[in-house]
Amino acid sequence: MASEMISHVGIAVADLDTAMARYVMLTGDDAPFIVEVPDQKVKVAIFSGGKVGAGHGGGRIELVAATSDDSPIAKYLAKRGEGLHHICIYVDDIERKLDELRAAGARLIDETPRIGAEGHRIAFVHPAGSHGVLLELEERG
Amino acid sequence: MASEMISHVGIAVADLDTAMARYVMLTGDDAPFIVEVPDQKVKVAIFSGGKVGAGHGGGRIELVAATSDDSPIAKYLAKRGEGLHHICIYVDDIERKLDELRAAGARLIDETPRIGAEGHRIAFVHPAGSHGVLLELEERG
Repeated sequence: MASEMISHVGIAVADLDTAMARYVMLTGDDAPFIVEVPDQKVKVAIFSGGKVGAGHGGGRIELVAATSDDSPIAKYLAKRGEGLHHICIYVDDIERKLDELRAAGARLIDETPRIGAEGHRIAFVHPAGSHGVLLELEERG
Repeated sequence: MASEMISHVGIAVADLDTAMARYVMLTGDDAPFIVEVPDQKVKVAIFSGGKVGAGHGGGRIELVAATSDDSPIAKYLAKRGEGLHHICIYVDDIERKLDELRAAGARLIDETPRIGAEGHRIAFVHPAGSHGVLLELEERG
């Protein structure tokens, strides 16, 4: 087994334009892909290191800003401020992984998979189940 | 430009063995590479998705535990608890990147590069300079 593990890292930011300018400088990727996810009330700038489009290739850095005061990201920012929000890792069989975690007593946010913004099946593990990390599981597409 | 951006994500954990068991399950990588870094007073479990050895290939998940009460990780855990600690991204020319960041007014932890645990040149950017994220820059080796 030697496959990519990290789909992306999500960073909660207050102002998308300001944060984008800094991460263009940091990553050297000057063409982030921008997508709005009305369902989650967020706007996301996706740095993929030059891979075109959202969701194409792992290891992405995603800046996530709220588009509304009742967005989960707005609540997160109010409580914790800007910073690392979650990591998303790939799994081969998401239902089986959720079963394994449940059997091990890990607390889940999503008991069953749902469809993420990029069309893949995803589920969130509660930080209590992954040592303080809000963890998203994404089924390899 | 289309190159890997994320070297690794560092997660601060209280007990390495317990956390390793959970991340073996989460990542499907059942052979993490374990390394002690006396300099930083930490022990690290490196999940690379099957790539052999430390530092071989990016996109790694690294669990970091303190080996002493005065380790920076012990202090972090006491203050914030377990969770996402830092991300490390690759840069081509670390001195030039530090110059760029300084010129943009970003706060740095390391004003000049130092040698990291894996022999590469690294430097930390203060969270105030990267929207709340403790960010490590690593020069491509």
